[in-house]
Amino acid sequence: MRCPSSSFLRRGTFIVALLWFCSAFAAALENPGNLNLIPVPSKIAVTEGKFRITEDLAIGAIGEAGARSKKAAARFMERLAGRTGLFFKQDYLAELGPSGSSSFLFKYETPGQLEPFEDESYALTVSPDRILLIAKTDLGVLHGFETILQLMDVDSQGYFIPCLQIDDTPRFAWRGLLIDVARHFMPVDVIKRNLDGMAAVKLNILHWHLTDDQGFRLECKIFPRLHQFGSDGLYYSQDQVRDVIAYAADRGIRVMPEFDIPGHSTSWLVAYPALASAPGPFKIERKWGVFDPVFNPTDENTYRFFDLFFEEMASLFPDGYIHIGGDENNGKQWDSNLEIQQFKKAHNLLDNHALQAYFNGRIQAILAKYGKKMVGWDEIFQPGLPKDIVIQSWRGRQALIDSAQRGYQGILSSGYYIDLCQPAAYHYLNDPISDEVPLKDEEKKLILGGEATMWSELVTQETIDSRIWPRTAAIAERLWSPASVQDVDDMYRRLDAIAVRLEELGLTHFKNQEMMLRRLAGSADIGPLRTILEVIEPLKQYKRHDQGLTYTELSPLTRIVDAALPESKAARLFRKMTDEFLRTNDRKIADALKTQLQRWRANHQLLRPLIKSSPVLSEIEPLSQDLYTVADIGIQALDAILAKTAGDRAWVNESRAACELAKKSKGHAELALIPAVEKLVQATLSR
Amino acid sequence: MRCPSSSFLRRGTFIVALLWFCSAFAAALENPGNLNLIPVPSKIAVTEGKFRITEDLAIGAIGEAGARSKKAAARFMERLAGRTGLFFKQDYLAELGPSGSSSFLFKYETPGQLEPFEDESYALTVSPDRILLIAKTDLGVLHGFETILQLMDVDSQGYFIPCLQIDDTPRFAWRGLLIDVARHFMPVDVIKRNLDGMAAVKLNILHWHLTDDQGFRLECKIFPRLHQFGSDGLYYSQDQVRDVIAYAADRGIRVMPEFDIPGHSTSWLVAYPALASAPGPFKIERKWGVFDPVFNPTDENTYRFFDLFFEEMASLFPDGYIHIGGDENNGKQWDSNLEIQQFKKAHNLLDNHALQAYFNGRIQAILAKYGKKMVGWDEIFQPGLPKDIVIQSWRGRQALIDSAQRGYQGILSSGYYIDLCQPAAYHYLNDPISDEVPLKDEEKKLILGGEATMWSELVTQETIDSRIWPRTAAIAERLWSPASVQDVDDMYRRLDAIAVRLEELGLTHFKNQEMMLRRLAGSADIGPLRTILEVIEPLKQYKRHDQGLTYTELSPLTRIVDAALPESKAARLFRKMTDEFLRTNDRKIADALKTQLQRWRANHQLLRPLIKSSPVLSEIEPLSQDLYTVADIGIQALDAILAKTAGDRAWVNESRAACELAKKSKGHAELALIPAVEKLVQATLSR
Repeated sequence: MRCPSSSFLRRGTFIVALLWFCSAFAAALENPGNLNLIPVPSKIAVTEGKFRITEDLAIGAIGEAGARSKKAAARFMERLAGRTGLFFKQDYLAELGPSGSSSFLFKYETPGQLEPFEDESYALTVSPDRILLIAKTDLGVLHGFETILQLMDVDSQGYFIPCLQIDDTPRFAWRGLLIDVARHFMPVDVIKRNLDGMAAVKLNILHWHLTDDQGFRLECKIFPRLHQFGSDGLYYSQDQVRDVIAYAADRGIRVMPEFDIPGHSTSWLVAYPALASAPGPFKIERKWGVFDPVFNPTDENTYRFFDLFFEEMASLFPDGYIHIGGDENNGKQWDSNLEIQQFKKAHNLLDNHALQAYFNGRIQAILAKYGKKMVGWDEIFQPGLPKDIVIQSWRGRQALIDSAQRGYQGILSSGYYIDLCQPAAYHYLNDPISDEVPLKDEEKKLILGGEATMWSELVTQETIDSRIWPRTAAIAERLWSPASVQDVDDMYRRLDAIAVRLEELGLTHFKNQEMMLRRLAGSADIGPLRTILEVIEPLKQYKRHDQGLTYTELSPLTRIVDAALPESKAARLFRKMTDEFLRTNDRKIADALKTQLQRWRANHQLLRPLIKSSPVLSEIEPLSQDLYTVADIGIQALDAILAKTAGDRAWVNESRAACELAKKSKGHAELALIPAVEKLVQATLSR
Repeated sequence: MRCPSSSFLRRGTFIVALLWFCSAFAAALENPGNLNLIPVPSKIAVTEGKFRITEDLAIGAIGEAGARSKKAAARFMERLAGRTGLFFKQDYLAELGPSGSSSFLFKYETPGQLEPFEDESYALTVSPDRILLIAKTDLGVLHGFETILQLMDVDSQGYFIPCLQIDDTPRFAWRGLLIDVARHFMPVDVIKRNLDGMAAVKLNILHWHLTDDQGFRLECKIFPRLHQFGSDGLYYSQDQVRDVIAYAADRGIRVMPEFDIPGHSTSWLVAYPALASAPGPFKIERKWGVFDPVFNPTDENTYRFFDLFFEEMASLFPDGYIHIGGDENNGKQWDSNLEIQQFKKAHNLLDNHALQAYFNGRIQAILAKYGKKMVGWDEIFQPGLPKDIVIQSWRGRQALIDSAQRGYQGILSSGYYIDLCQPAAYHYLNDPISDEVPLKDEEKKLILGGEATMWSELVTQETIDSRIWPRTAAIAERLWSPASVQDVDDMYRRLDAIAVRLEELGLTHFKNQEMMLRRLAGSADIGPLRTILEVIEPLKQYKRHDQGLTYTELSPLTRIVDAALPESKAARLFRKMTDEFLRTNDRKIADALKTQLQRWRANHQLLRPLIKSSPVLSEIEPLSQDLYTVADIGIQALDAILAKTAGDRAWVNESRAACELAKKSKGHAELALIPAVEKLVQATLSR
């Protein structure tokens, strides 16, 4: 199963040129007071005044506070101190201030349970002399802390929280991020920092894709051959798993493991070939795609194996749900196995889908025995399964509708495939329950939420954060905020703000980019690389697999395309300014556009020596040449528009052809400014 | 117990101006072929030709290879692929190529033991069609891998290893890095990435300072109150400890724990106040310094406690040595405890030093019972202890000399206090056995080596890497390479190269700087901050504690001074160019200096709006003003020198006074270019 985008703007010149533009723009937004909240709360009323953050700020609980809220309070204070440089007087590690004198008071009734539909609401009142945070459960308190950290603002007198009243509760109960650690293993610290990122945007479930053809990534005590032979030594110990679960629980996040069966299971069958549907031996798969090895669903040993396996996993993972995958079984091994054919006839199983349904039923019974509910990709859907299972839709929204109409719960992932490097706006407007969905109200309630999916064929621990963040914050808002919150421009404004704030959690979405450029250049002098990176985006969807290189688990993911952020901020702003210029014909905007284009055009000459001294960079020489060409066309188009000269159709055709050529991918990447330049070219005709 | 420096140069203009200068300079070095090896090998002979790195590169063992060398080989290939972008054909995770067809062959005789004086030598022969790496132990093989990675070079035809013959062996057996995780806790991933950095420069022992007044940082099974009450929840589980030890062992690195007793032990006594020399209760110490709480050395319960404690720790830590600290006991609790006074009299212990010697003797006997040798800070030295103990000198070299003359082994840390932000050159020239050391040859053999010490009062997990790297590589060279290797300029050239290469190991010494600037600015637009950061260094030694702020464990270490690198590269190069200009009077150099100074002078105006919008930055406004002033003086001086006008003494006096004022610290930091500007001012007089 298994795309969106953000390039990172650094150069002073363009920034300065943009400042007046963006601020003028922002003033027009409906989000009250231009707050940087993401997700937007259910209800918000801004009042007068500011709560000043000083060294006297002390946090205290009204009534008893449990360990989770105390630890969260300490992290809250540490992050606030980190941003403001203030030496808070309170020893927030050791004690929550006495509630009387504390300027920030919180209160909750009961510890939250980590399960769907637990109360996560909170009410926040900020007045000039006090912050009051009230929630039903400590989960709500944690959400409130994150809201306050997003509210922190600054004026000439210092840091403050604006006075307001927020009443907030999520729209959907299931708000997840899938991290695939099978295709590329992700060490514990990668998972932990992403859990912190999830908490910051109020996501509440980590879907941990632990096994696949390319790796079995956790220690199994009863069948140790699984991790010993199926992982190349890259797996989590059970102690590490418990550590991650506790870390997540401290942040109000559930951890649901996925064990993808009966297909996507080569790594298991390396260890236990006798359980496969065809003779082994098998090797850990290095390539990406759909492979033949599949468990034998007609062999009782298979179920004895899974009974013992899930007994162990059910006690390791406290969450009420276990995901069994169930996707992309090509059936080849089943078709070529005579005994399996006979079994199908004997049991009146008409096709492989029916056979897999039989398998799923057996597995579901095992999970139920150990107190777990089953989750699977949309292929597992079949009437007859108990109604407490959950269907995860990846092939399209229809699966979600079908299953809801038959009374089954579902979550949406189709449209949230963040590995495919599509723009945040694309994901943002993908609503699990859009207006056109033909469902009755009770059926709609069966749609529990959604999950962003971070498949890891083309990411490593160095790049995964940049694929997840900040775009996943847009998905988090879709799943938390009222359906009516749909302003894409305002989303991007807030996304830019949260992107910087997420870095305090150790996330590497920005900082690893220059590290990667330094490695490619073999030097700290990377100026021109930085410039071209502003407008480069990785190829979208699955196109990167179609560029003449066969990627495997061993392929280096350290190229320019890997350093490129999925969505170029500079290109997005350039497109926006272009639209604005074409609407207003404002000379100032044109000048800013031209300055930017000149900078990009000039970069080719600066970059060439660097490319010459680093062969690994040679693949971006044509991309750099294209940037020169396209920027030059843009400059000519601007000049023509400003000069109000009659459109020159020959030049337009020639320029369009050049843009088309430039759109062809080079270095597995593309230039994100071309559509804007094409608009400028088109506009030369209409003057 | 418990400083050096590297600012990071980014701006194209200055870099370009410097290129001709540095390359001309580098050509004069003695290091053959301008290799980037650090530490420099014992013997090296460069031959003709290049070994080309292609996709066909395959690595293979001659004879049997154990897990350590196989895993290291896989990491070697992954790093090489990461830099070159090559898709190696070999499945290096699963198999080492058959030795016949492999272009890179390695061989060793026996697995290395992780203990002092194990054979770490290796011989490397690179010829155009083959790399051959031969060692006595796999530890030598690991060192050889790192050497090859440092040798990797590039020309117009691609990546290559230059042909050569290296025979290499360390000068000292004990080459360590101390990491203090008590003052600020460092999560496992921080330790791991630093172990990788250590391996890259051939360090072989991690000295893990696990306990101190501010925290008891590991799980203790027999006395769980220690971590439960002494750590604020910030400690390593024993599983994590084992994980770190295994990770280190895979990289040929010993892990020696330090349990600092009888003083520096407040965190222990929070849990067990009855073992203290004065009545409790005690609280975990938040401040820095020397504190009163100390174990009661006259109470047999103390030794019963330590017997059980060290029994557990001796089995947790496989290393043959345990460090017991033994430093900075102020004796106050002993002096005010009547029973302790009586005990001293009864046992004829003349002073507290003698009492502590008694304590040490008892502890040493416990360690010996569990098969461990004792290490301690130089205070523990006393005749009568067995000769297998090791004295770590922190107060000065004399302790090392004294103990060696009495037949005791020692290691040097005085002069290697990397937390004090002193220049790499300072540490580099600090030799454990300098020519003046009045020791006989046998006595010199007792000096086992040295350790860089990373005390963590003023670092967090965000900044610790920037204090350790790259300066620690200079110390690593001092401890590995022949004593005659002393060329400071060449060391800096190689340090700049390794600094970039160390980033591939996940180290954050460069990349966290801009992250921190973005947090301070609350925005991705940090251009002028970057510029001033080029020439800022943190205050040296212990001066930062004397600036009107009382730092504690809770103080935010997120300011500009924390983002500043210990040694400004831009300032170092500026000083160097200034010297070169004053020697040659070369106009081209003067132009480059002036361009740079103009850029720094212009920065003040650019930075001011940023400071205005971020109160936490206000403390650097005077620093920025100083940079304006000093750069302006430098420009005037250069103009005067070039104009060959007669020196204007009044202007000189005024400028000197301005420089003196600018030297006064602001924002806990200093401007590293002032000495060079003062030289320029002085030079106006001699024209």
